[in-house]
Amino acid sequence: MSAMSEARKQENAPTLGTEERTLLQPKPQRPWPKTRKNVTGCLGFVKRQLFQIGDDWYFLFILGVLMALISFALDFTVVKLLRAHRWLFEQMESSTLLQYISWTVYPIAMTTFSTGFSQCVSPQSGGSGIPELKTILTGVLLEEYLTMKNFGAKVVGLTCSLAAGSTIFLGKVGPFVHISTMIATYLGRIRTTVTRDYENKSKRYEMLVAAAAVGVASCFGAPISGVLFSVEVMSSHFAVRNYWRGFFAATCGAFMFRLLAVFNSEQETIIALFKTKFRVDFPFDLPETLIFIILGIICGILSCIYLCCQRSMVAYIRRNAFILKLVAAEKAVYSGLVTLLLASITFPDSLGQFMACRLTMKELLSSLFDHRSWAVLSQNATLNIQARVDPDNLWIEWCHPSFTFFGTLLFFLFMKFWMLILATTIPMPAGYFMPVLIYGAVIGRLVGEIMVIIFPNGIKSEGVLNPIVPGGYALAGAAAFSGAVTHTLSTALLVFELTGQLAHFLPVLLAVLVANAIAQKFQPSFYDGTIIVKKLPYLPRIRSSMPGSYDVTVEEFMNTNITCLNKNFGYTDILRLVTSRSDDVYPVVENAESMVLVGSIQRNEVVKLLQAHREEEFQKDNTHQKEVSISIWEKCHIDPVTFQLSPSTSLHQAHKLFDLLVLQHMFVTSAGKVVGFVTRNELKKVIEDLANDRIPVKQ
Amino acid sequence: MSAMSEARKQENAPTLGTEERTLLQPKPQRPWPKTRKNVTGCLGFVKRQLFQIGDDWYFLFILGVLMALISFALDFTVVKLLRAHRWLFEQMESSTLLQYISWTVYPIAMTTFSTGFSQCVSPQSGGSGIPELKTILTGVLLEEYLTMKNFGAKVVGLTCSLAAGSTIFLGKVGPFVHISTMIATYLGRIRTTVTRDYENKSKRYEMLVAAAAVGVASCFGAPISGVLFSVEVMSSHFAVRNYWRGFFAATCGAFMFRLLAVFNSEQETIIALFKTKFRVDFPFDLPETLIFIILGIICGILSCIYLCCQRSMVAYIRRNAFILKLVAAEKAVYSGLVTLLLASITFPDSLGQFMACRLTMKELLSSLFDHRSWAVLSQNATLNIQARVDPDNLWIEWCHPSFTFFGTLLFFLFMKFWMLILATTIPMPAGYFMPVLIYGAVIGRLVGEIMVIIFPNGIKSEGVLNPIVPGGYALAGAAAFSGAVTHTLSTALLVFELTGQLAHFLPVLLAVLVANAIAQKFQPSFYDGTIIVKKLPYLPRIRSSMPGSYDVTVEEFMNTNITCLNKNFGYTDILRLVTSRSDDVYPVVENAESMVLVGSIQRNEVVKLLQAHREEEFQKDNTHQKEVSISIWEKCHIDPVTFQLSPSTSLHQAHKLFDLLVLQHMFVTSAGKVVGFVTRNELKKVIEDLANDRIPVKQ
Repeated sequence: MSAMSEARKQENAPTLGTEERTLLQPKPQRPWPKTRKNVTGCLGFVKRQLFQIGDDWYFLFILGVLMALISFALDFTVVKLLRAHRWLFEQMESSTLLQYISWTVYPIAMTTFSTGFSQCVSPQSGGSGIPELKTILTGVLLEEYLTMKNFGAKVVGLTCSLAAGSTIFLGKVGPFVHISTMIATYLGRIRTTVTRDYENKSKRYEMLVAAAAVGVASCFGAPISGVLFSVEVMSSHFAVRNYWRGFFAATCGAFMFRLLAVFNSEQETIIALFKTKFRVDFPFDLPETLIFIILGIICGILSCIYLCCQRSMVAYIRRNAFILKLVAAEKAVYSGLVTLLLASITFPDSLGQFMACRLTMKELLSSLFDHRSWAVLSQNATLNIQARVDPDNLWIEWCHPSFTFFGTLLFFLFMKFWMLILATTIPMPAGYFMPVLIYGAVIGRLVGEIMVIIFPNGIKSEGVLNPIVPGGYALAGAAAFSGAVTHTLSTALLVFELTGQLAHFLPVLLAVLVANAIAQKFQPSFYDGTIIVKKLPYLPRIRSSMPGSYDVTVEEFMNTNITCLNKNFGYTDILRLVTSRSDDVYPVVENAESMVLVGSIQRNEVVKLLQAHREEEFQKDNTHQKEVSISIWEKCHIDPVTFQLSPSTSLHQAHKLFDLLVLQHMFVTSAGKVVGFVTRNELKKVIEDLANDRIPVKQ
Repeated sequence: MSAMSEARKQENAPTLGTEERTLLQPKPQRPWPKTRKNVTGCLGFVKRQLFQIGDDWYFLFILGVLMALISFALDFTVVKLLRAHRWLFEQMESSTLLQYISWTVYPIAMTTFSTGFSQCVSPQSGGSGIPELKTILTGVLLEEYLTMKNFGAKVVGLTCSLAAGSTIFLGKVGPFVHISTMIATYLGRIRTTVTRDYENKSKRYEMLVAAAAVGVASCFGAPISGVLFSVEVMSSHFAVRNYWRGFFAATCGAFMFRLLAVFNSEQETIIALFKTKFRVDFPFDLPETLIFIILGIICGILSCIYLCCQRSMVAYIRRNAFILKLVAAEKAVYSGLVTLLLASITFPDSLGQFMACRLTMKELLSSLFDHRSWAVLSQNATLNIQARVDPDNLWIEWCHPSFTFFGTLLFFLFMKFWMLILATTIPMPAGYFMPVLIYGAVIGRLVGEIMVIIFPNGIKSEGVLNPIVPGGYALAGAAAFSGAVTHTLSTALLVFELTGQLAHFLPVLLAVLVANAIAQKFQPSFYDGTIIVKKLPYLPRIRSSMPGSYDVTVEEFMNTNITCLNKNFGYTDILRLVTSRSDDVYPVVENAESMVLVGSIQRNEVVKLLQAHREEEFQKDNTHQKEVSISIWEKCHIDPVTFQLSPSTSLHQAHKLFDLLVLQHMFVTSAGKVVGFVTRNELKKVIEDLANDRIPVKQ
């Protein structure tokens, strides 16, 4: 009723004079004021609530969705490009020569373009990017690694690298992590422009860590293992706060990635990337656990050999004058030559027929995770070399009529071992995780099929015979080998998220643990190895097996060769100090007698001021030096000392501090007096001494 | 041949004289010296390798296996005790009164014994133990919480608490985490005795964190989520090194736990604890994701209400004079009374028939995770109240003939809400995670069954009808509600490890994320809430939504009310300082003018020396006071300052340091001069101010 009377009032309004109407306008009597007020109030509440959530979460959401879109678009393009290559190859059926040309030229074109383009746009875009990212997260600034130019080079280069397919046998995880951090950096810059906040260092760090998780998650649609993998690979410490952020962004990314697959009618609903049909009610028998552990040992040993060979190869290339010259002058030519060699070997009419070379990376993994036993399948089928790949029976590609699938699997392991190492030397954007995963799956499949041959009806358990599932072994092998190479345990979870089931949970975990124990004992991880070879800053871990590592104190390894600035220093004193020592940071003490530490000064700060002083001097014709030097002192920015070590601090504690707080340099003080300093170099040296049983002697 | 000649030499030996024989004895010519040497060499190598692994890993292995044994033994005993109760109850079929007595007296006996025994042996053994553990991990010493006496009390008490079954509706996770850390502490002490090492603080911390992971893992046979859950609940920062340790121990524990189940013929092979039969190829349709998110919102809101009520209830009990008196005087009587009330309500012939009270905790969860729809099942079955629980058709317990299962589910939710809160006030060892998990599963099941009623044939997607799986909703509800109550995301993984499948992976993750977002915004977690109510030391998190939290610097909230000790202080100066201020730590400065910080002294150290000095004084009849005070100074132990803040350090940085480095107290210095100090109290205050929009004004 009141609403009606309100409406009537409004109708009466036009009868008023013009002035009165104008006066009324600022407060017009619009209908339903109460409802209106309530709605406005509600909207205001929602708005306030949305603002209160904090822009971080919107940022992470956008990051996740963007990465999913990029991942999907990239996959989409790569599938089309690979299909084009297969079509081209199949059209040339009449002539082997034409087939050979189409087989080799296509990937050569792709890799040379990838190398040429990416190196031309940004030389930092080569490789996986994870080692550099790891270095950035330890506090070293490598700004050019996170620019948008690099982003463009990486995306285009990666698409071409992946389009070269299983010929060059490379993946996309590493570059994707790198791409994700570049987008996060860019989004962060946009945010600071919009909100007019200054860019916060710790916030930037948080976002980089979350972005790394999104990279893995949007690659595989595996959010939890994405977060864990990025944590294990990237950092030695992580905050639960960042873990939640990574989790949120990764879930958004993975959900979007799978959603796009449904919208594109690739799948009916959201399911895993590599769907399997393992038997759930009795996946494996108890004695098989032992075989899984043996598989873990095999994977661990092989990973050590692989890591060692890979590092030696990269080091060799860096030493060999001819290759070095070639790589330096014409990177694209080097890529082309390597690809020509790889493509010639994998040509289906030559050696390629013995290593299932016609399958793409995804098809390889799907065929290896097959729940059916190839031994059983090949008994019941007539095996001929098929003209084309049958998408429903990918396993046939592995079963060469005369060579059998044992031969193919072994040959694959032998050939891909050095081919993969060779491929990793090509300076183009590409990931090295996926090939390692497939390699591990082949090892596992081999062990699984051997088990089927030994126990054709399965292992007898309480009178019931349960056939062996070789796909489970492939799963364990993939997780164990890739985990050992990257020194991560989360690959165990990754393979389950990839296959959407959990049947072989405990045996796979055991295999991964065993493989990791062996690999971590004898070799640095793939990423650490690259950091060592590339001579990037690196702080080794303290192993629990190092004898007496808990007894070492800072006193035993600190650098006592220290010279301090003090407030009474004149111009010449400072000049002498700066020219005689090239430290990055100088300690500042109260006075030369007490030696009490009050702060530190950056070297470049001192140098800058010395230069300014000299210019002044020239102008003023050096008159009152002392006074000027004091003014320098006042002009200089003295950093307060937040962290300092004491001589009795233990090595473990010092290592933890450098690691946790992303430090480069710390002073050692005893009762306030400066007695020395420790940098990452000193720590590295003492840890290496401990590892080689050269325990430092107390000074 | 050489072996034979060797043997001949030996045969010749007896012909030699006695002296000669004695001389030869130290180096007897035994057969196959080469082989022997090789074998010895090999054994030596293996031995060296085994020693090199480091005792940590053996320690973790033993811890895992021990916890699995304890967990299994406890489960075994509890199952027998519960079966005895059921048998007793079913024997009394003739008389309702006798049935009532058997139904109530058994749990009353259990809880009163549990309370009486555990409180008598060790008053610290009550409750879950996780809040106290969390406090210990922030660096506060609560030694009595980790003694073996407490261990005994906890194990016996927990067994009895669990034997009271679903009547009191409590679980075992929390106490198990506590038990695991107690065992780790004890094993650590044994280790230091054996290896004659001094006990290392950081090593002890590492082991406690790993032990917490083992606790969860050996409870559920879920290693990965065990590690993640313990990380999320226990700490705000985590070292990947500890994560690996936790992983190893948790896998050992989980494997052993499942292995024992196989050896005990409970299962044929190692499979998940709650096996499900969800449809894998099409687990859910895309539009259902929306319902999962709505379920997450419901769980989030309910968890907020639950947490709020729970905290208020505990606070009320701590204020109410009568209950306080009762609890203080006769804890066992209080337990008995509460159990009598709970048991009377759950009596199957009274209200219990409407809330599936005859099922044990495990059976409840199994019935809720059932892949079949109750709506469909109840249409096809004649529903009568069964005399006994049918282990193959647990769902019948939920389907009351006149009340329907919707009624039962709703009634369960309504009743258990306050019954659970009441049960948590009983001062006996018991966990609160399992009931929350079941409660969430009921919420999810209710939503799932409603979905089945609305879409009886499933949601139409591209012409194909796929029936809805209400078990999937139960899974999501369990993960979301338990995740929201404990503020963890790893519950999403936990439910999958529990059920051994991954079909509903992404929707469950989304539900957990949404529920967590709501709960973390409005309420502290269950464990933090307990810490607050129990007034244990606690450092709140800085939320990203707090406006301007990145702009606050130490200068704005540090405590400037500081008095320093200096080297020129005499006895009376020190005495005046100690009596006027009751800080735990006093700063030591070079002299009163420069105020340069050189170290710190513990209060108790100063007090001790003052007392010693006074005794001396009495003996020596105070002659040379100044001299004595200087000797005090030399006797006192001055701690070196490792960490200090600067006034320009940001709040985030300071918070991170306190958190990361487990600190209680830090001095603030400006160019070496002491200007203030910050403790956890100051940090807590400024964070609370920020949360309430009272941003501190620059002083």
